[in-house]
This record gives sequence, structure tokens and C-alpha cells, in this order.
Amino acid sequence: MPQRRVGLWLIGGRGSVSTCVVYGLAGLREGWLEPTGLITAQLPLSALQLAGFDEFVVGGHDVCRRPMTESAGELVASHILTQELVTLAAPHAGAYEARLRPGLLDDADVGFANLDPASARLGGLSPREKIAQVAADIEQFARSEDLQRVVVVHLASTEAYRPAHASWRSLEAFEKALDEGVSQPASCLYAYAALSNGHPHVNFTPSPGASIPALRELARAHGVPHCGSDGKTGETLLKTVLAPMFVARALRVRAWQGYNMLGNRDGEVLSDPLHKESKLRNKDDALRSILGDDQAHTHVGIDFVPSLEDWKTAFDLIHFEGFLRTRMTLSFTWTGSDSALAAPLVLDLARLADFAAERGEVGDMAHTASFFKSPIGGGTHDFHAQFERLMEYARLHAGRP
Amino acid sequence: MPQRRVGLWLIGGRGSVSTCVVYGLAGLREGWLEPTGLITAQLPLSALQLAGFDEFVVGGHDVCRRPMTESAGELVASHILTQELVTLAAPHAGAYEARLRPGLLDDADVGFANLDPASARLGGLSPREKIAQVAADIEQFARSEDLQRVVVVHLASTEAYRPAHASWRSLEAFEKALDEGVSQPASCLYAYAALSNGHPHVNFTPSPGASIPALRELARAHGVPHCGSDGKTGETLLKTVLAPMFVARALRVRAWQGYNMLGNRDGEVLSDPLHKESKLRNKDDALRSILGDDQAHTHVGIDFVPSLEDWKTAFDLIHFEGFLRTRMTLSFTWTGSDSALAAPLVLDLARLADFAAERGEVGDMAHTASFFKSPIGGGTHDFHAQFERLMEYARLHAGRP
Amino acid sequence: MPQRRVGLWLIGGRGSVSTCVVYGLAGLREGWLEPTGLITAQLPLSALQLAGFDEFVVGGHDVCRRPMTESAGELVASHILTQELVTLAAPHAGAYEARLRPGLLDDADVGFANLDPASARLGGLSPREKIAQVAADIEQFARSEDLQRVVVVHLASTEAYRPAHASWRSLEAFEKALDEGVSQPASCLYAYAALSNGHPHVNFTPSPGASIPALRELARAHGVPHCGSDGKTGETLLKTVLAPMFVARALRVRAWQGYNMLGNRDGEVLSDPLHKESKLRNKDDALRSILGDDQAHTHVGIDFVPSLEDWKTAFDLIHFEGFLRTRMTLSFTWTGSDSALAAPLVLDLARLADFAAERGEVGDMAHTASFFKSPIGGGTHDFHAQFERLMEYARLHAGRP
Amino acid sequence: MPQRRVGLWLIGGRGSVSTCVVYGLAGLREGWLEPTGLITAQLPLSALQLAGFDEFVVGGHDVCRRPMTESAGELVASHILTQELVTLAAPHAGAYEARLRPGLLDDADVGFANLDPASARLGGLSPREKIAQVAADIEQFARSEDLQRVVVVHLASTEAYRPAHASWRSLEAFEKALDEGVSQPASCLYAYAALSNGHPHVNFTPSPGASIPALRELARAHGVPHCGSDGKTGETLLKTVLAPMFVARALRVRAWQGYNMLGNRDGEVLSDPLHKESKLRNKDDALRSILGDDQAHTHVGIDFVPSLEDWKTAFDLIHFEGFLRTRMTLSFTWTGSDSALAAPLVLDLARLADFAAERGEVGDMAHTASFFKSPIGGGTHDFHAQFERLMEYARLHAGRP
Repeated sequence: MPQRRVGLWLIGGRGSVSTCVVYGLAGLREGWLEPTGLITAQLPLSALQLAGFDEFVVGGHDVCRRPMTESAGELVASHILTQELVTLAAPHAGAYEARLRPGLLDDADVGFANLDPASARLGGLSPREKIAQVAADIEQFARSEDLQRVVVVHLASTEAYRPAHASWRSLEAFEKALDEGVSQPASCLYAYAALSNGHPHVNFTPSPGASIPALRELARAHGVPHCGSDGKTGETLLKTVLAPMFVARALRVRAWQGYNMLGNRDGEVLSDPLHKESKLRNKDDALRSILGDDQAHTHVGIDFVPSLEDWKTAFDLIHFEGFLRTRMTLSFTWTGSDSALAAPLVLDLARLADFAAERGEVGDMAHTASFFKSPIGGGTHDFHAQFERLMEYARLHAGRP
Repeated sequence: MPQRRVGLWLIGGRGSVSTCVVYGLAGLREGWLEPTGLITAQLPLSALQLAGFDEFVVGGHDVCRRPMTESAGELVASHILTQELVTLAAPHAGAYEARLRPGLLDDADVGFANLDPASARLGGLSPREKIAQVAADIEQFARSEDLQRVVVVHLASTEAYRPAHASWRSLEAFEKALDEGVSQPASCLYAYAALSNGHPHVNFTPSPGASIPALRELARAHGVPHCGSDGKTGETLLKTVLAPMFVARALRVRAWQGYNMLGNRDGEVLSDPLHKESKLRNKDDALRSILGDDQAHTHVGIDFVPSLEDWKTAFDLIHFEGFLRTRMTLSFTWTGSDSALAAPLVLDLARLADFAAERGEVGDMAHTASFFKSPIGGGTHDFHAQFERLMEYARLHAGRP
Repeated sequence: MPQRRVGLWLIGGRGSVSTCVVYGLAGLREGWLEPTGLITAQLPLSALQLAGFDEFVVGGHDVCRRPMTESAGELVASHILTQELVTLAAPHAGAYEARLRPGLLDDADVGFANLDPASARLGGLSPREKIAQVAADIEQFARSEDLQRVVVVHLASTEAYRPAHASWRSLEAFEKALDEGVSQPASCLYAYAALSNGHPHVNFTPSPGASIPALRELARAHGVPHCGSDGKTGETLLKTVLAPMFVARALRVRAWQGYNMLGNRDGEVLSDPLHKESKLRNKDDALRSILGDDQAHTHVGIDFVPSLEDWKTAFDLIHFEGFLRTRMTLSFTWTGSDSALAAPLVLDLARLADFAAERGEVGDMAHTASFFKSPIGGGTHDFHAQFERLMEYARLHAGRP
Repeated sequence: MPQRRVGLWLIGGRGSVSTCVVYGLAGLREGWLEPTGLITAQLPLSALQLAGFDEFVVGGHDVCRRPMTESAGELVASHILTQELVTLAAPHAGAYEARLRPGLLDDADVGFANLDPASARLGGLSPREKIAQVAADIEQFARSEDLQRVVVVHLASTEAYRPAHASWRSLEAFEKALDEGVSQPASCLYAYAALSNGHPHVNFTPSPGASIPALRELARAHGVPHCGSDGKTGETLLKTVLAPMFVARALRVRAWQGYNMLGNRDGEVLSDPLHKESKLRNKDDALRSILGDDQAHTHVGIDFVPSLEDWKTAFDLIHFEGFLRTRMTLSFTWTGSDSALAAPLVLDLARLADFAAERGEVGDMAHTASFFKSPIGGGTHDFHAQFERLMEYARLHAGRP
């Protein structure tokens, strides 16, 4: 018997991560699935008074009209969702789909099939009007579902890389640019709509979203907690686990070559050079920051390989030097479903963001750094050090209302 | 201009790790080598007042007569030592070789070529007599080299596995067994000789050495610090770095298969089932302890592959389950020179053991757990947690005399 | 409109390979599947006048009672069969299951759950009686289904290794042993029943089956074609493709380590040392025969890893020496469904055995060597040379009735 | 006691392949090395009356002045040559170095350090004058060393990719372009000089060399045998060995991703996009030609990783579909010394080219296709089929004078 009603609003609500979130949440709620991959379901985080899986109501925005059945069918064909779960959870998925609203297309987005005409029409609005529309959709969701809170999670496809814009530097400059109708990344407009209306925000993508100084200022001004950016799910997770070992052992990394292959929509978008650029920066930064060595040669590649679908394969070769100038190698191959790795983290972050808001936390949720390739608040990229910080947070707040 | 003279006494002094220690130390002392792979040469450990590389005098025991030139030649052929270093360091190696004394053959040792006749003769002595002979050799070394301290490091080939003997449970029982002439592992006799004469002891092998309760009691009784056992250099290091990641992310490891291939003397000894047993127990324990999951299927294999020589190749396959019951895999291949990985850790531990003795520490050096597959004092096997403890120790004692 | 009716009789008819054969054949017949993995469906073999997929009627023997729905369900859970195919093909599977008869348990078989009581009772019969029962079952199948021919394919679990028995050397000795009630491998009794009644026989397993001299003589005496043994589907296939490259290029293989991991029933049976012995002999022989070099160190391991289910993962490390004594490595990782790799080869071999019988061929089907780890007729293990022979056969007989 | 004197003229004579050829040939001649990696040293090719290792005299062209001792020293540091061999063979290397002449810089070459001023001066000559200079150098070599034949092998760094030029289509057009002073790739000028003076030519690089129609016509006009192009030493060799297996087994390759990492001069040159283009075309063509399937997604990458030096590491992921639409993978990692793999093939080809010339063969040496990524005469890329053709040639001409 749920005591609260918490909204989870997914930007990119028809994508494969969102689809896994929706069916997975149904499975958790009904007891069809175990909470494997959910950090908040195990100690010490499970001792926090987090929202229960049955307390969430999910809705979202998307720019395309692809039906959930199609997205779910692809994930079944890829052996990520089972047909059984999709059938059982059909009512949940149907209710979710009814709550989806047409989203904002980023001005620099690559064209694609099945664009929602309503989204296309939104493209003609000014930035301020777009923000108002997004905010109105979320308020309508909150009202009609009688929600005590809405957490907004950005899961839309990576936007094309843009160099930092002058208007991003301060809230004042950003407001002025909005007034002037200057084009801004859709992720920033969404984040503005969320934060200015008091909704905690999670940026799970490499897009700027709420990570720019102007919007971090906005979050503080409105007393809202938020976190991001770019979920650390696979190859980068491994990098930030392994690189500290080389540093700890004084082994000198000479080269770290990382090759990522994937075939989902994310991979397709990333096959565009500008979109890839956004992603690669985060992936390489984490490694270089840990190694702290200008002599290490690093490379990260992402290639679109359609037949792999959602199953990302990463191959990394690490060439390092040991005592007596010996040359050694470590290589690894990671094969994981990007969506099934991301979805539980989304649920974890939604619960943690709601909890932070309940506690009255404001601004960067620094304790969530282990979830991200580019933690908003900066700090170490060492996964274990980041994780230790989350554990401390959990121990500090365990059992408190 | 060295201010102290510290002895480093290597049991298994003609083996490949010892050979790398001797030539490597010469290279460090003379500035021919950088201290890559030495943890104590980088911050925060380098801020401790540790013995300098030029303050060490090295000697040791071995049961075989193989000349250093032969051992060094093999390592040159294997591309671990360079011919240049071997030529430059010849005087150091010659002086070291002159300090080597015939060692104790373990009663359960497999026969091998080139056994030192003097070692064979020692086999006829009683345990007490063996201890006395070892102690006399070390005292002679200390006296003739005018040493302020001698650190004893056990590097001999892994002994055959023996179930724990009743006499190992307490010092009293052990003393009684010695009086009765009960056969004990050579590693224990060496450790007894070291500890009872006040020499700090490092057990870098899986053999029991000073790790049994009786000898830990002896160390405390004589006020000596010691540590061990079984240096964590390669595959197990990776396991204890990676397994915590799966636990942290609530990903359920279903199977972890580890295959080790190596071709050095260590590999040859391990091709004997009883000797292999000693090694595999340590390798598997670390993993199972971290995963803490009876449902994970684990396997560790070690195969002797002569052509690989000292270059150990490990292949691990990790099969794990994520959200939505998805099955994913991580596999890694590690190719490293066992001896070049071990040698700098030996130097690190010798410096840390000397430092601990200077500070008057007694018993288990718990802060060295990250160096070992089976840390004597127990505790977590999580490498990063172990390493954090070492860092705390370093920060606490940095800059103090 | 089929013009012929050809029986396909599967020994081990409830196993996962048989399950894939039955559902796969239904899928091919009905056009739900493409003939991927079927050699006989592409040129030049497709130009032979082979039996059509709709001309086969399938039945078989098994010692267990596990229902097809359970076997199919496991393969769906393992992502090898789709739920859709299983549902569509249910009528075919039901008809097949009705044709299954209780099989012979090998005298040296390991016990397992769900043994068919009727099979247990067969265990009490004499060898001659067992043969008669098997033969009667097949005759009943042929009669009731109005079949022009029955091809018998042995797919049962690998039998425990037995050293060659004196009675295997000649048909006369074998007949005498049968008269005397000497225990023989079940695979040999099945093969005797098939060959002595004129049914072509395919031994897809490492069990002796029709490969022993006595039964090869029997096949010739009865004018029946047969082939085997031990389907070459994965790691050994790769070995026989790659090893000739090293030989061709005069690169000297120093070590070839192969590690196989699998979790299906086959893996479970092979976790018994005697059963594993049968398998490893074939796997190692092929490689050593190609390398023809006593100095190469080879190793093959098979480990049972339950969570992998039918997805065999093989890791091979090849350490080789090139010009200037340089040491190089090739390693590969193969991840394939054992059953989905085997099933199309079973269909190919059934078609080829039927074709050979139509043509009046007698004895070893030497042109099928590329399908097997241990081709009955011996000859090269080089896959490409073996395959070239099959291509010649195809070109020779293409288009002939 | 050699009966013949055969010249081997290496274009790119100071590069690492040439260095391995020179030291390796000395080692073979003096019995310090075994002929591992030399196809012509094993049956059936060894039964041909090929020039002996002691019958070769080596010289060459290069555009840089880097001393052989430096090139050899790098290869020693990379563990490809041993210091011992370099010391022993110093007289051979010295004699070779004295025979080196300043080479032609390709007009599109990337600049680099240590350019020979004499080569820079040659850049000012017309194409005809350049050819004359090259030819004069070779004639001088032949005369002063009293050689019966000179085989010219092109080993210079890959030239920048150029689309096929109209003048390449016929000898007449090429001659006209030469008369007009049209710039041509240096590899073509060298090849012209060799062929027009009756010297057999081997193009071991992807540069056009003698592979263009105009120069193939020239070879026929002068009655000279030649072969090329682009030595098949590592990843592409494996592709042409493995891809036919998938085709033979009707397994449908969905994706083949190949990643090459290397750090030698070749890698450095290939880090320039135009130079890389030349290489990638050959690598991808071979694979696509074998798979013959437009639905396979293929990718080949080459990345410059300085610390790897001459040790190329290639990682390939092959994603394929089997029966029942199952998705499987094969991945391999190849670690080999590019130069040590190439050098013995250069010696093999020099011997085969000399033999072909002795026999009076003219034009493309089609039997050498297995050596090349882009065999001049075209034909299959299937390594085993190519190799079988070489074996037939060997059997045909074995034992004949």
C-alpha cells in the first residue's frame, strides 16, 4: 500500500533505456523480477527511506511516435526483454504510453524516421515557449496523477557537440539569451523547465542539460537537487575501476586503446561525427584524469555495428610498463546490454534524487558521482573512491526519515 | 652516502624473482633504472623515511647451485632483463652470489636438477638443527656486513600443500613438535629462525611460512613485525580489483573462470598437483570472499606452458547477470612477467618491514594487505579498500623519523 | 508435394541437438527459417538431388522421459529457439515426440534424473536382445510411416572412454562377443542394429558407434554407407582451419592451449573424467596431426560452467615462433550455441547419407571428413583440404539422379 | 661454395623490414638462425632449385640517412633482433650499408626527419631522369658485385593514396606522361627502372609500384616476371584464412570489425589519412571478396600507438548468424612483429622471383598470390586456395634445373 506518489518523467521516453525502465519497474513492482543491477536495493542504500517501486508513476516526452510495442519487440528480439514480461506488463506499458507527450527536437538533431508531427511543430516556438510547453506537460502529469514530486530524467539521444556558449556561463546570461530567442540545446531547455519548477533533474546523457554553470545556478536558486552527467555503465566504468590499479601499483600505462561497437539507436546517432564528439570527450577525460600522465597514449573509438543491436561490445588494450622496463598488456572484452545496464541506474538515481529532495538537499548531488562519466561536481573519476562516498552518504542517512 | 646498512635476505635467492630483485636494486641504486612498479617510490609512501636503495645489502639461501649468470641469461632471453643491465650490474651480482648460503630443502619438495650437495646434507639434520643453521647463516651475514637490521623475504618455490598440522595451532605445540623432531615445512623453519632472532619476515609465497598461528605468536613474543602471504601480482590482483565493481553495481556474477598459463620454474613446480593445490586455494578464496555468493561458479586453473617462460598469461571469463535477467560477459587477458611484477613489491615490502621495525611495530603488518593474496591478518580482499588502508598508514607516518 | 518419404532416426532424441533438429526442420519446411548453417542448401551441394526438407519424417530413441516442451523451453530461455517458433512448430514436435521410443542406457553411463523406466528395463537384456529391440523400433517406424529409407544419426551423450576392446577388431570377434553376452557400448549396439538392417548411419558423437573396425566391416558386408565421428562444430573446427596456416607459413607453434567452457547436458556429462577423456582425445588428435611437431605443447580442457547453458565459450592461446626467433601470439574466443551449430550439420549429413545410399555407395563416406573431429576413414584434419574433397564430390555428382 | 651471385635490391633499405632481411640473411647464411617463417625452406618449395642464402648480395635505395646501427638498435630494444645477432652480423650489415644509395622521395610523401640531402636533390629531377638515376645505381651494383641477376623488392613506406591516373592505363600513355614530366608515384618510377632493365620486381607494399596496367605491360614487353602487392602478414592473413570457413559452413557473417594498432614507422606514416587510405582498401577488399555478401558490415581501422613499436596488435570481432537465427561471435587478438613476419616472405619472394626469371617466366607470378593482400593477377583471396596453387607450382617444378 503505497503512501506516496512519485512521478518519474523520462525525456526520450520511447527509447530503449526508457522501455527497459518501464517494463523493468513493472516487473519489480509485481515481483516478476529480482532487483539485480539496482544499487539501491542492496545494503547500505536499501536502508535509506527511498520511494518504493510501487510508489512511482512514469510518464515522459519523446520526439518520435514509435509505439512501445515496437520498441519492446526489438528488445525481445535482442534477448533483453522476454516476451513473457512484455505480455505480463502490457497494461503498465499502455498506461505509460498514454502519458507520453510530444518532445523537443534539438535544433542540431540529425533527421530520422517517424518524427512526431507535434514535435516538429514545437520546433517553430521560441526557447521560452518551448520551456513553457515542457513545464506545462509536467505540471499536467503531476496534477492528473496526484503526485507529491516529479523527478525528471534526461535519456534522449546524445546531442551534437557544441562548444560552450557564452550564455552558459551564468544564469543571468542564459536568461538574457532566452529573452533574445538564442537557440539552446533541447537538453538545456528541458532542464530549465524542470529546475525552475522545482523538479529534481538527472542528466543520464552527455548532452549539456543541467550541467552548464547557468543551470547549476538555477538549481541552487530554486533549491532543487540534481545530478549528471552521462551514465557510467560499461567501458568507462571499467576504465575507472582498472586505471586506479595501475596508478596504485606504480605501473606506467603507455597506451590505452578503447574500441566500442554498438548497434542501437544510440550507436546510430553516434555515427554522426558531431554527436560522437560529445561522447568521446567524456570517455577520454575520465581515463586521462586518473592516469594523470601526459605520456600515456589514449584513444577511444565508437563504431556503429547494426547487427549488435543493443549489445555493446568494447575491446580495450592497455599497454603498460613495469619494473625493469618490461612491457606488459591487459586487454578486456566487455559484452553488455547498454539498456539493461542503464535502466537500473536510472531507477537508482530517481530514488536518490527524490530522497535528496525530501531531505532538502540543493544543487549538485555529489554523492552520485560513481554513476557518471562526467560528475557535475567534478572530483575524482576513481570508481571506488566515488563509490565510497556514496556508501558514506548511505551510512550517514540510513534509517532517517 | 648511506647512513644505515640494512640486510635483505632472500630465501630462494637464485630464483627468477630474486634475480630481478638483485639486478633491479643495482639498477635503481646506480640510476640505470626508474622505480617503475615500486609503490614506495611514489607519494604518499615516498614521504616515509624508508631505507634508501643504496642502504640495502642483499644475501640469501638457496637449495640449488645454478649460477646467477645462468638465471640472468634466461631472463635476458625472455626479454625481462636487458643484456646491458646484466653486464653493468655484474659486480653487484657477483658480490651477492658470494653471500648466498645452502638452503633447506622442504621434506615434501619435488626433486630437481642441480641440488646443492650442502643443501642435501642439511636434509639429515633435525628441525632444531636446521633452524640453528639458518639462523647462524643470517647472523654471519649481519655481522660480516655490519648490518643494523636484516629483513628476511621468503621467495622459494611453493611447497606442496599440507593440511594444517595440530602443532601449528600454538607456539607451545610448535616448540614441542620441534623438540620431538616432527617434520615441518621448510618455510616454517626459515620463519622460525628469522623471527626468533628478531628479523622482520615477509612471506611472498603461498607456503605456510610465518602465517601459521604458532609463528604469529612467536613474532609477537619477540616483538617483530611480519607480513604475508602470497604476493598479489597478476590475475588475483585483477580479480580483487574487478569483483568489487560487480558487487558495488549489484550485478550478479554467475561464473568466473580463470585460466593461468606460465612456463617458469614456478609453473613447473605448480604442475605437481600438491604444489598447485597450495596456490589455487589462495587464488579462489580471494574471489569467493568478495563475491560472497554461493551461487557463483568459480574455477581457477594453472597450466605449465614451457614456451611462455616467465610471461604468465591469464584468461578470465566472467559471466554475470544484470537487470531483466540479461546475461553479459567480461573477459580479460593479462600478459605480464611474473618476476618483474613481483620484484618491486619485494623491495617495497622490505622497506616497509624495515620501517615497521624501526617504529617498533609488532606482529601482523595489516597495512600491507594489498600486497597479498592471503593477508595474514585477514580482512577484506577488496584491493582498493586494502590500498586505502596503506594510504592512511602512509599519511599518518609521513615525515616522521 | 514430396515424392519420397525418408526417415531420420535420432539416437538421443530428447537432447538439445535433436530438439534443434526437430524445430529447425519444421521451420525450414514451413518457410519460417532460412537455411543458415546448412551446407547442403548452398552451391555446389544444393545442386545434388538431395531429399527435400519436407521429405523427412523424424523419430528416435532416448533413455530419459524429459518432455520436448521442457527441452524446448530451456532452449528458449537460452535464446537459441524463439518462443514463436516453438509455438508454431508445436504440432510437428508433438508428432515427433509420439514417435520416440525408450533407448539403451550405456552400461558405463553416469546416473541421471528422469530415466525412462522402460530404458532401465532394457538394461536387463542381453546385447543381442538389445539390438533386436532397437531394430524392431526402427522397423516399426519405417513401416508405420511408409518410409523408403531410414537414416540413423547418433546424438546421445558422450559415453565413458573405454580402451579398444579385442572384440572390436573384426566382425567375427564382435559377433562372437555378442553371442557370449559381452557388454558393449550402447553406441555400438545401436550402430549394429542400424547397419545390419541396411540403414545408413551417422555417428555425430565421440562414442565408438560404427567407427570400430568390426562395424565398419559390418557396413561393407551389408552394403551400407556411414560416416562419423564427433561433429566438428566449434573450437576444433577453428583449430583445423588455423593450424594449417601456421604450417603453410613455416611458423613454429610452441604451445596451443585450448579451454572450453559449457553448461549444457553435454558439459555435465563431460564433467565426469572418463567421459571427458573420450572427447579430449579427438580434440587434441586433430591439432597434433596437423602440426606434426612433437615440440608443440598442446592442451585441451573442458569445464562445466552451468550458467553458460548451451553457449560454449572457447578460449585458445597459440604461442608461436617466427623468423629471428621472435615470439608471437594469436588468441581467439569463440562463443557459439553448440546445438545450433550441430543441428544443421545433422540435417546435412542425413541428406548426404541418404544420397550416398541412393547412389549405392558402401562403407565410409570419406567425402564427409570436414564434418568430423575424427573422420572414420582417417586422412588429413586440414579443414580446407577436407572441404575441397566434399566440393569435388558435389561437382562430380551434381545434377545426376 | 656459391655457384651464382644474385643481387637483392631493397627499396626502403634502411627500414625495419630491410634491417630484418639483412641481419636475418646473415644469420641464415652463417647458421646462427633457423629458417623459421621461410616457406621456401620447407617442402615442397625447398625441392626447387632456388638460390641459396649464401648466393645473395644485398643493396638498396633509401631516402633517409638513419644508420643501420640505429635501426638495428631499435629492433633490439623491441626484442625483435638480439644484441648477439647484431654484433655477430656487424660486418654483413656494414657491407650492406656501403651499398645503399640515395632514393627517390615520393612527391606526395609526408616530411620526416633525417632526409638524405642527396635524395632531396633527386626531387628536382624529371621523372625520366629519376628513372635513369635509379637504373644507374642498380647497374652499378650489378657490375661491381659481379651479379648474374638483381631482384628488386619494394619495401618503402606506403605512399599516399592517389586515384588511378589516366596515364596508368597503358604503357603508351605512361611513356607519354613520362615524356611530359607528369609526376608519378616514386614506387612506379622504381618499378619502371627495374622492369625496363630486366630485373624481376616484387612489390611488398600497397603503393602502386608495378601493379598498374602500364607497368604490367612493360614487364611483359621486357620478358620479366614480377609480383605483388602488399604483403599479407598478419590480420589480413587471418581474415583470408577464417572467412572461407564461414562461407564453407553457410554461417552468415553479419559484422567483421578489425582494429589494428601499431607503433613503427609504418604506423606513423599510416596515421596520415591519405596514406592510411591506401592500406585500408587492400585490407577490406580481401574480406569482402571472400564473403561476397553485401549485408555484412565490415570495418578496418589502423591506429598509431607509439609504445607498441613494431609489435602490431590486431583485434577482430566477427559477429555471425547460425541456424535458428542464433547470433554468435568469434574474436581474435593477434600480436606479431610486423617486420619479423615480413622479412622471411621477402626472402621467399626474392628466391621465387629469381627462380621464375631463371625459368623464363614473364609477367605476373600468379602462383605467389598467397603472399599478398592484393595479388596482381587477381583471383581468389582464400588463403588456402592461393596456397594450394603455390604447392602445385612447387610440385610441378621440383627438382628441375
